[in-house]
Amino acid sequence: MDIIKNPKEMQKISERKRNEGKIISLVPTMGFFHEGHLSLIREGRNLGDFLVVSLFVNPIQFGPKEDFNSYPRDFERDKRLAYKEGVDVIFAPSIDLMYPESFQTKVEVENLTKNLCGKKRPGHFKGVTTIVAKLFNIVKPHFAIFGQKDYQQLIVIKKMVEDLNFDLEIISMPTIREEDGLAMSSRNNYLNHEEREAALCLSRALKEAESLFYSGERISSRLINRMEEIINKNKLNKVEYIQICDANTLEDLDIIDRPCVIALAVKVGKARLIDNLVIKN
Amino acid sequence: MDIIKNPKEMQKISERKRNEGKIISLVPTMGFFHEGHLSLIREGRNLGDFLVVSLFVNPIQFGPKEDFNSYPRDFERDKRLAYKEGVDVIFAPSIDLMYPESFQTKVEVENLTKNLCGKKRPGHFKGVTTIVAKLFNIVKPHFAIFGQKDYQQLIVIKKMVEDLNFDLEIISMPTIREEDGLAMSSRNNYLNHEEREAALCLSRALKEAESLFYSGERISSRLINRMEEIINKNKLNKVEYIQICDANTLEDLDIIDRPCVIALAVKVGKARLIDNLVIKN
Repeated sequence: MDIIKNPKEMQKISERKRNEGKIISLVPTMGFFHEGHLSLIREGRNLGDFLVVSLFVNPIQFGPKEDFNSYPRDFERDKRLAYKEGVDVIFAPSIDLMYPESFQTKVEVENLTKNLCGKKRPGHFKGVTTIVAKLFNIVKPHFAIFGQKDYQQLIVIKKMVEDLNFDLEIISMPTIREEDGLAMSSRNNYLNHEEREAALCLSRALKEAESLFYSGERISSRLINRMEEIINKNKLNKVEYIQICDANTLEDLDIIDRPCVIALAVKVGKARLIDNLVIKN
Repeated sequence: MDIIKNPKEMQKISERKRNEGKIISLVPTMGFFHEGHLSLIREGRNLGDFLVVSLFVNPIQFGPKEDFNSYPRDFERDKRLAYKEGVDVIFAPSIDLMYPESFQTKVEVENLTKNLCGKKRPGHFKGVTTIVAKLFNIVKPHFAIFGQKDYQQLIVIKKMVEDLNFDLEIISMPTIREEDGLAMSSRNNYLNHEEREAALCLSRALKEAESLFYSGERISSRLINRMEEIINKNKLNKVEYIQICDANTLEDLDIIDRPCVIALAVKVGKARLIDNLVIKN
């Protein structure tokens, strides 16, 4: 397994692999791997001959008051885990090489980023699409694998790929959960014991909404109210949003009459956690 | 010579050519070829094994009151000229395929687009960088050739390529002029006989500024005033801007103490004409 830090070097290697007829998979990450990342990496391994995992905590997708500095990092552990999964290259560029002083180009998906997390984290998705466009040009993958846990990110990136004609396929993988239902996230690391317990309300609320839906409830506000009740029962939780949106356009739905995503963001202590459930109808 | 209208088909052909080890050149145009375009096409022919000329009047780079509808078009003539120059493919996609209804992704170079034409044509360069990013992903060129006549466009595209890590080289070619000095432009087509005469002031003013510079003048305002005088002498001309800017950052220079561009935009009748001169020092 190679560790590549220079974008130009990575690009040269990828171009050579493509010319050799190899299929390249890319798993873009911010590191601090958990089973969610590993499931993406395994899918990348299945799909391609040459598997690149990028590891870069991307400063421009964090707001000024967000957790860029405290975001958990453990490069040595990530390296061991990647090696075990048969990763060919960890691409771990420096901030300087990715964003030199004169850097000033941004990629923006304009509509899909207006709702949900986009509303609460202005500039976040612009930072995401910009880094992902750069990674696509550097690594030149045939497949790029993303988790459904970040559902809006997934939809936004698919749109960028379609709109800008990137010649690659976005593969999405299901959210991986702890045994008790908590969606895996590097940010779970921020939770103390009590907060960890409180955080369980997120997946419980989604489960409850799902079962109400399957009992015939189609009015979004009723599902949302019920979820809010469940989450607010624990005083450590502060709901940021609970919304039910069209699964493709991410516009709010009053009545669930088409495929939808039930999405929520909750502050639990320092941690801002998100989770979601897609209902295909 | 093939005429390709479908982006996916173009992309497949380009990918195949790359896999065969061919070097691809791209000349992006809006058609209505003149000697300026042909000089870019000839350079593309020199540099690559496989020469693609894109021909697309890009709606999103025109403002609502600009000349998208009246922009001159003559596909049959362009086809003949391209064929004579040994072009392999004319890529002439439809607007529907480039911008389907749900299209919403934009690429923006944030600082270099604030001055000069960017100030007068809000959104113009965002439209340019977005279409060029799309063309790069569709045609996958090793070289893309642009004219210096659109100097700010050239600098903006170079920045986008650097910032987003496009794996290709931007080649710039000198402005081609009529015998009397008028910079070639598809928009010269809008000029009647008198306006054509008035438009000569643009290149004359630049020549005069150049000769003042070489006689030792370094104060930008003096050069600008002299150019303004020359252009305003003809009542058909309406100066939009005359500026002297750092050749790399495009910031205004009071004193010419480094490489600069003298750039101007003038309305002559219906035609908005631009011209420039780079002084390397």
